[in-house]
Formats: sequence, structure tokens, C-alpha cells
Amino acid sequence: MQSFKSPNGLDKDILELGQTFAPRFDENGLIAAIAQDAESGQILMFAYMNEEALAQTLKTGEVHYWSRSRKALWHKGATSGHIQKLVEIRTDCDQDVLLLRVKQISAACHQGFKSCFYRKVEWSDDKTRLSNPLETRIVDPDAVYGKS
Amino acid sequence: MQSFKSPNGLDKDILELGQTFAPRFDENGLIAAIAQDAESGQILMFAYMNEEALAQTLKTGEVHYWSRSRKALWHKGATSGHIQKLVEIRTDCDQDVLLLRVKQISAACHQGFKSCFYRKVEWSDDKTRLSNPLETRIVDPDAVYGKS
Repeated sequence: MQSFKSPNGLDKDILELGQTFAPRFDENGLIAAIAQDAESGQILMFAYMNEEALAQTLKTGEVHYWSRSRKALWHKGATSGHIQKLVEIRTDCDQDVLLLRVKQISAACHQGFKSCFYRKVEWSDDKTRLSNPLETRIVDPDAVYGKS
Repeated sequence: MQSFKSPNGLDKDILELGQTFAPRFDENGLIAAIAQDAESGQILMFAYMNEEALAQTLKTGEVHYWSRSRKALWHKGATSGHIQKLVEIRTDCDQDVLLLRVKQISAACHQGFKSCFYRKVEWSDDKTRLSNPLETRIVDPDAVYGKS
């Protein structure tokens, strides 16, 4: 399995401006990952990767995450077929976040929407609520995952 | 200060499909927040909010975060002038991530780039490295923050 350079002891200028890829996995071995549609720029979802998930993503070209609830490597779309084909990975200045630019097959969200961010927050004075979904479902979740 | 409904005990369908905004702050009282340019769709940065940061953001229309390194409320741009004007907030299916659609004044990144995601990962076989910055600096960080 591919391993990555450790950021420990790395000079701040090298970490932030250099060419050394040294992803800063946190104390749980995880790094935040934002998935964005490479073509439209739409934010699809947010999850975490561990070192193995990142290595598998680079190796296979299909996005893998770490499922914190299931405590298991998660090949996105392995069950539903709704895989994410990797187009590009970027990292941020201090290398503790990854931006995955992907081609999403069908819906990214288990609720059947293209993106998980289908509701906006509406507020006035000290009241907040969510809008109705701003997108139309493109998949029936019961048909893909079964009734829960 | 505005407070938010607790997600504890909320029915999963209401959490994921309803109109109740119940942000799921984690065990440290934080929620992940992605900042995206509302016009271009470019991902600008990633940080965390606590309840106060979110309330202040809604109240003032300027984005506030929680700085984990400084352990303090962080009014983005208060020092540099590079504020983020809030255009829209979205949340994801299970309400543990916020997507902030903003108008970014000048650079979002302390390194002087519009976005923190200015480098991409390049890989072949078992080697990885980062590209040179894909953007031009729009701000001289030394001039804004002083030499560090």
C-alpha cells in the first residue's frame, strides 16, 4: 500500500508552499475530504479518509472513504453503483483537508439527491428552519438500499 | 445569542428530510464548515464553527469560525479585512456539515491566494508530490500579517 510522507517536523514553508505531499491525518488517523463535481463545481458530500482510503483512491481511481459509523473502509458506490471517479485531488495550505474533484455516477447522497447539500437554512430574528429540498431526487433510495 | 434545536432524539426522517434545523455539533461542540464562492463555485477554505460562531454569522452576515489553534471565536477577516459576506448556508443530509456560500473579499487564504486549495496532488506508481501553486497570489501575506 502506498504510504505518505509524515508532516511531523516538516518546515511550515515546505508544508504550505512546497511540493511535498504530507497529508496531516488527525489523532484518529483521519483527514477531512470534500467531494466536488469536477465539471459543475457543485459540492456533493463531505466525509473522512484514512491513509488506506487515500491510497486505494489513488490506486483505483475510484474514491474510498473511512466510514466512522461502520469503522470500515468504504468504497463509495460499491453497493449502489454510485461511484465517484477521481478527476483531481487538491490539498489546502496546511494539508489537513483534501478536495476531491470527481465525476459522480448518479446520486452522491443516500437520500437519492445528486448532492447531500439539498437544503438551505432560512432565518429571521432568532428563528431558523430548513427549506424544502432544492433539488429533485434522481434516485429512489428504497430501490437502491431497501427500506430501512 | 441565538440557540439551535438539538438533534438529540430527533427522528432520522425529520433530521434528513424535514425543515427542522438541528446542527449536529460534535463532542467538542464543533461542526465542519466548507466555504464556497457563491458566484464561481470555487472552494475557498474549510474550518469549524461552534454554536456561537454560527449564531454570530447569522446575526452579522459575516462569517465567524472557531479557531481550534487559538481556541477563540474567529471573525474571518477582522484583521486582514478579507471578510466573507454570507450569501447562503446549506446543510447536508444528516446535518453534521455546513456549506457556506459567500462573497469573499480579496484572498481567503493566509498565504495570499484566493483559495486555500491552490495545489493539486500528482502521483504515479507509489510516488506522490504536489504541483506548484495553480493560482497567482492576489495578496502579499507579509504586507497583511507581517513577517512571521
